[in-house]
Parts: sequence; C-alpha cells; structure tokens
Amino acid sequence: KLIELMEPLHAADIADLLEQVNAFDRGRLIRLYGREFDGDILSELDESIREDVISMLHPQVLAEAVRELDSDDVVDLVEDLEAPQQAAILGALEAADRVAVQQALSYPDNSAGRLMQREVVFAPDHWNVGQAIDYLRNSDELPEQFYHIVLVDPRLHPVANVTLGKLMGSPRNVPLKDICEEVFQVIPAEQDEADVAYAFNQYHLISAPVVDAEGRLVGVITIDDAMAVLDEENEEDILRLAGVGEESSLSDSVVDTARQRLPWLAVNLVTAILASLVIAQFAETIAALVALAILMPIVASMGGNAGTQSLTVAVRSLATRDLTRANAWRVIRRELLVGLVNGVIFAVVMGVVSLVWFGTLDLGYVIAAAMVINLVVAGLAGTAVPIVLEKFGVDPALASGTFVTTVTDVVGFFVFLGLAGLVLM
Amino acid sequence: KLIELMEPLHAADIADLLEQVNAFDRGRLIRLYGREFDGDILSELDESIREDVISMLHPQVLAEAVRELDSDDVVDLVEDLEAPQQAAILGALEAADRVAVQQALSYPDNSAGRLMQREVVFAPDHWNVGQAIDYLRNSDELPEQFYHIVLVDPRLHPVANVTLGKLMGSPRNVPLKDICEEVFQVIPAEQDEADVAYAFNQYHLISAPVVDAEGRLVGVITIDDAMAVLDEENEEDILRLAGVGEESSLSDSVVDTARQRLPWLAVNLVTAILASLVIAQFAETIAALVALAILMPIVASMGGNAGTQSLTVAVRSLATRDLTRANAWRVIRRELLVGLVNGVIFAVVMGVVSLVWFGTLDLGYVIAAAMVINLVVAGLAGTAVPIVLEKFGVDPALASGTFVTTVTDVVGFFVFLGLAGLVLM
Ligand SMILES: [Mg+2]
Ligand SMILES: [Mg+2]
Ligand SMILES: [Mg+2]
Ligand SMILES: [Mg+2]
Ligand SMILES: [Mg+2]
Ligand SMILES: [Mg+2]
Ligand SMILES: [Mg+2]
Ligand SMILES: [Mg+2]
Ligand SMILES: [Mg+2]
Ligand SMILES: [Mg+2]
Ligand SMILES: [Mg+2]
Ligand SMILES: [Mg+2]
Ligand SMILES: [Mg+2]
Repeated sequence: KLIELMEPLHAADIADLLEQVNAFDRGRLIRLYGREFDGDILSELDESIREDVISMLHPQVLAEAVRELDSDDVVDLVEDLEAPQQAAILGALEAADRVAVQQALSYPDNSAGRLMQREVVFAPDHWNVGQAIDYLRNSDELPEQFYHIVLVDPRLHPVANVTLGKLMGSPRNVPLKDICEEVFQVIPAEQDEADVAYAFNQYHLISAPVVDAEGRLVGVITIDDAMAVLDEENEEDILRLAGVGEESSLSDSVVDTARQRLPWLAVNLVTAILASLVIAQFAETIAALVALAILMPIVASMGGNAGTQSLTVAVRSLATRDLTRANAWRVIRRELLVGLVNGVIFAVVMGVVSLVWFGTLDLGYVIAAAMVINLVVAGLAGTAVPIVLEKFGVDPALASGTFVTTVTDVVGFFVFLGLAGLVLM
Repeated sequence: KLIELMEPLHAADIADLLEQVNAFDRGRLIRLYGREFDGDILSELDESIREDVISMLHPQVLAEAVRELDSDDVVDLVEDLEAPQQAAILGALEAADRVAVQQALSYPDNSAGRLMQREVVFAPDHWNVGQAIDYLRNSDELPEQFYHIVLVDPRLHPVANVTLGKLMGSPRNVPLKDICEEVFQVIPAEQDEADVAYAFNQYHLISAPVVDAEGRLVGVITIDDAMAVLDEENEEDILRLAGVGEESSLSDSVVDTARQRLPWLAVNLVTAILASLVIAQFAETIAALVALAILMPIVASMGGNAGTQSLTVAVRSLATRDLTRANAWRVIRRELLVGLVNGVIFAVVMGVVSLVWFGTLDLGYVIAAAMVINLVVAGLAGTAVPIVLEKFGVDPALASGTFVTTVTDVVGFFVFLGLAGLVLM
C-alpha cells in the first residue's frame, strides 16, 4: 500500500524520503521495495547514505537499477564508493558502458570529464539542414535528452552548436553553419566543475561540448548537471564560512557530526585563548576598573560583526568573479571607509551609552576611539584576508572567518584596554 | 580600438567590465560605444548600476537595444526601474510586446509570471509526430530558444512535454502522447520564483509551462533563468546570514554600503550591551578574581562558533528542503548531542588549560561546566531558532544569526560568572 502511494513520486522525492526517515525505517522501506528499485533513486540519494542503501540491495536488483542510468549518472554514483561496491556496480554494466565509465573516472575528481555524458549528437560542419534532419530521423539510437547538434570539423574538433529548434525552423538547403548559435563554449575535460558551472550561468549555456587534450569531442555537459554543481559550490561556501565540513549531511550520525565540527572549534579555541592572553596583559588595569571588563566584549563583538559582513561580501564576490584584480584596491578602500563611517557612528553611540552608564566621559572617549579603530581594521581584514588567500590558492571561504575574527578580537581588546591603561590610570 | 577589442566579448562579460571600472571610466566607455549598445548588456548589468547606464544612453539607442530582447528579459529589466525610465523603455517597445510585458508585470514581484517568457511552442495533444514536424517546419516565427513542445488539451491546459530530440527520432505516425516526457511539472504563474528554482533543480527540468489561475498555458520558464534564480537565492542566504543586505553590490558607494550594513550592526550593539549587562551583575566577582575577565570571552566565543555551525546547517537544510517537519525533532536531538560531545571534549581541554595557566582546579571545574552548558545551548538554539522562524514565515537566514549569538553570549557569561560566584567566592 505504501509502495502504491509512492509510485507516482519522482525519484528525487523518494530519495529525499529515504534521507529523512531514520535508518530503521529506511531499511524497511527498501525491503518493501524488493525487486523494483529505480536507478535514479540511487543517483539522487545523498552520498552519506548511498553506500548504506546500496549494500542493502540484492546484487541482482542493483545491477538492473544501474543499467538504466546515463553514463554521467553512473560516474557520479560510483566515484564516491569504496572499491568493492564500485567493482560490483562496474561489473553489472554492459561492456561498452563499463569502458565509458572507466574512461570518465580517469579524469580528475570534480572535472568536466566526470560531469559529461558520452552520448553526443554531432554532424560534419559542411552539412545542410536537410542532411541533418535525415540523419536524425534515420538514426535509431539518439540520447534520451539532447538539445543541440554539435558541428565538428574533419579532425572532430567542435566548431559550433545548432539548436534543434533552429533546425526545425529552417529550409532544407540552408547550411548548418548559417544557423549556429552565437554563444558557443568548448569545455576542456580537465576543467574544474566549478568553472564549468560558472560558464553555464554566465553565458546561459544549455549544453556545451567537452574536448580532450587534443581538442577532440569526447562528450557533452548539460545545464541540469551544471545547475546542480553551482548549487553545491554555493553550499560549500555557506558551510565553509561557518566552519562546517561541506560534506556534512542531515543523515550523519552524532559522532560523525561532532567529528566534522571539532576542527574549527579547536582552531577557534586557540584564537580565543590568544585573545585572552591579550586581556591578561591588562589584568591590573581591569582590577582597578571593572567597568572595562564589562564593556570590552562590546568592542570585540562589533568588530567581529563588521568583519564578517566585509568578509562575506568579499568571499561571495570572489566566487561570482565580481571581485578581481581590476577592482580589488577600490573595494578594499571602500570597505575601509565604510568601517570608518560606521565606526564613527557607533563610537558616538557607545560614548554616550558609557557616559550614562558609568558617569564618566573618559571611559566614553576610550571606547569610542577603540570602536572606530576596530571597525576600520574589520573592514580592512574582512576584505584583504580573503583576497590574499585566494591569491595563494586557498579557498577564501574555508579559512577567512577565523582569521578575521581573531584580528578583530585581538585588536578590539588590545586597543580598548591599552587606551584605557594610558588614559585612565 | 578598445571597441574592437571588446567586439568578441559576450554581453555578460561586457556587463562585468562596466561593473568593475569606476563611474568615470564607465561613462567614457558608454560614450565610446555610441549607437551600438547591445540590449543583452543591459540585461546582464547589475541592478545597482543599471539605472545609471540607462540614463547615459541616447533614447534612440536605448529603444533599439530594448527591442532586441526577449519578453522575459525586458520584464527583468524594467521591473526594478523608476517610473520615468520604465515608461521610456515600455514606450520604445512595439505595441504587442508592450502588452506582453505589462501583463507579466501584473504578476507579483519574484513570481513565476515575472520569470516566464510568453513565446511558447504548443500543440494539441491528439497530434502525431508527423503533424508536429510539419507544423514546426511551416511556422515562420518560432522562438529563439525552445526545447519542448507543450501538449495542450482543448481548454489550453498543458498536459505533457515532448522534447524536440524525441520528435526527431520518432516515426511520423506515432502519437505525441506516446513520446512525452515522464517528468512534467506545471508551474502556476503566482508561484514564488524560489519554488520554481527548487523544482527545476530537484526534477532536472529543462523547461516548464506556466499556467494562469484557470490552468491555461500562458508562458514557459527555461532552466537558464531558473539557474540564475537559484544562484540569487543562495546569494541572499549567504549575505543575510552575515547581516548584509542582499541588494548589496560591489558597485555601491561608501555611503550606500555603510547604510546597508548599519541596521544589523545596530542590532548587534543592542545584544552586545545586553551581554554586558549580564557581566555587570557580576562586577564584584570579577573585581575579586580578574582571571574571570580573562577567561570569560572564551566560553562566549566557543558557544557563538558552535551555534553558528548548527545554525548554518539548519538554514541551508531548510533552503534545500532537507529539513522538514518529518525530521526536525531528530535533527534538534542530534545537534544537542553534538553540542554535548564537543562540549565535554573542550571542557576537558579548557579545564587543563586554566589549571596550568592559573594554577587552580576550581577555576577549571567552573569553565568546564560552563563550556558544556553553552555548547549544548548553542546546538539547541542554532537549530530551533531557524526552524521556529521558518514556521512563522520569517526568513531563517535573515534574523537567526543575531538571536543565536545573543543566546550564547548571555548564557556563556551568566553561567560562567554565576558558577564562579557560587563556587569560588
Ligand atoms: Mg535529495
Ligand atoms: Mg559526484
Ligand atoms: Mg566542487
Ligand atoms: Mg546528465
Ligand atoms: Mg568554492
Ligand atoms: Mg558576474
Ligand atoms: Mg554580471
Ligand atoms: Mg535570456
Ligand atoms: Mg529581476
Ligand atoms: Mg528571490
Ligand atoms: Mg529567458
Ligand atoms: Mg531564501
Ligand atoms: Mg533535496
């Protein structure tokens, strides 16, 4: 009965369902499914539970499920599996498909070669519309989904795309070359998938031919797969900015999750102790005036907040390639000035607050000055740190956050307590 | 000469170039371009400088640029403009296009009706392949880009999609109904664009018909536009999590940027003062033992970090719909337990650190206990706050961050200083 209810569901929704129930119910559902497990469900499943589900399936059922899939989906499925499961799936494929998958796996992780499907429709670039239509209508093994005919020169180098729509709308004697798309991008098989996703989004590509090192057509990438990559890259940035491993999944166990989160908490502990060492230098000053201990977290917190704002804008702009060498200095200068403007505004506010609270204008001057300095430093660090990391090939989303808040904590405590020591003692 | 260099560039790259140079160079470039300004450049331009650029163009040039565009791109262009510029562009369109654009503008902001293009290819659902091919080959106004023929019933309700590839590969006498796509989603024109983007990504749609309130076909959305929306929604979440207005752009001026950032800094100031008020309750305790002032930021900082981790995972999972009512309790329980596990680990570490540093085991017990409590609270707040906000229709990315760090600051200072007061005094 449950199976009947699930019958009309899309494979992606069934996968989501399997992800959301607990491990026990998952096992029961899969046993219920028995011998009709759709291969697409495996493709859609989150990697964290894929191995579990695969190991629950009868080898015969798994083999049938996998044979239905496109080559690119099989590659996506097997690339993250352990060797024995990988061998089981490869063994279930027909010989030709197995070779195709193994060839794709020979390209680097996260490359265009892994993302492409090998089923491409192409035609010589000297054909006309009539020849192409006749060819398509007479071939009996067209791919499930294709949107363009790739025109190739005699050496099999892709030279243009013709959409099926234009083909249908043009007289038979028109050369294909005359109706090809204006926008055309060829993707090297070694290219990083993040760059592929960028190109699809930037140039509104629907499909793009993939070429090997000699420039020969070896496959095609379609926009639906590029869209999934773009979404994953964004997820990676969001999670990395928060110090969470990008492989994290809601289906992970408590122990796995705790282990993923621990490294950045450990880094944070070290930097927090660093900030405490700064405070410790001013122990006598604080002992003499406890108000300093009460107010000091405000300066650090405002700096951390402003730094995170600048940082996030910079990381996002680097990802969308809106922040480049051409405008880096202008952006850094702008963030500095923004820090100055907001620093002065909140300096005045905090000056007044501390005057009212502690009844002394001296304390107000000190916190105001510390606020201005820390917000300017926050703007500078928040922008410069990710730019420098990117320059050295480190993902700016990964490490910047801790760097920046360490700077604003240390500077915040040092300037506030230091100035207090000078002015008030 | 510069114009020659730019000739082979894609409109999206020219738009990026115009965004990255300063306002003065931008003006010069546009004057150089003179009378050949491509309408696609306007579509690709960031909204923050679009109005500027439009106001620099000669009305004649603007009119020609706009007439080249698809209806969906014109809608995207005019929807954010001030009334006079909007009127100028609408005035430049041909009458039929103007009506189409105005009709699209009658749908709510950020709805499918704004995103769709009105140029759709459709056919009666009782046709066969031959009839569809003849129809396509004889019609002289096919849209620039289309990938499916939408099958409609006699009341113009879309019932299925047929890909052009399948059409080309099938014999003439096959009914279209027999070769339609398995996956088919109809999108109501009022639907939020974020839900549209979700559907495209979840079901790997390439194009989907849009219907009015009566279920009649009114347009079609293609995946390239859905991809752009998905990217924007992700950008919105990244920026909102950091307390930055999602309309922020690198081309914004210092004053505009400072104004955008100010509100969340102001909220943060209020919550920081709240935390300080908590500290102030323990002024005597701190005066008696300055080590407390030195150590207290560590407890707050670790709580804030762990809370941000939980929060970011929850916000992202809500956006991808992986976190639902079905698994909310399980996720909350998991985050609580993760907080407990990591809390205990860092409690032991900090206990030892403070024993070594300050030579007293009592202080170690206090900070260890405070650490465990604050990390458990962080896991709870980090997950529950966004879930509750989402339930009340507030964007969890927008407000959760401040809530959660306020909780971890207040709890961190209160528990640490309170326990210290009880145990050490
Ligand atoms: Mg899923
Ligand atoms: Mg993969
Ligand atoms: Mg990647
Ligand atoms: Mg694919
Ligand atoms: Mg990245
Ligand atoms: Mg860009
Ligand atoms: Mg751009
Ligand atoms: Mg477009
Ligand atoms: Mg818009
Ligand atoms: Mg939106
Ligand atoms: Mg469009
Ligand atoms: Mg959102
Ligand atoms: Mg999902």
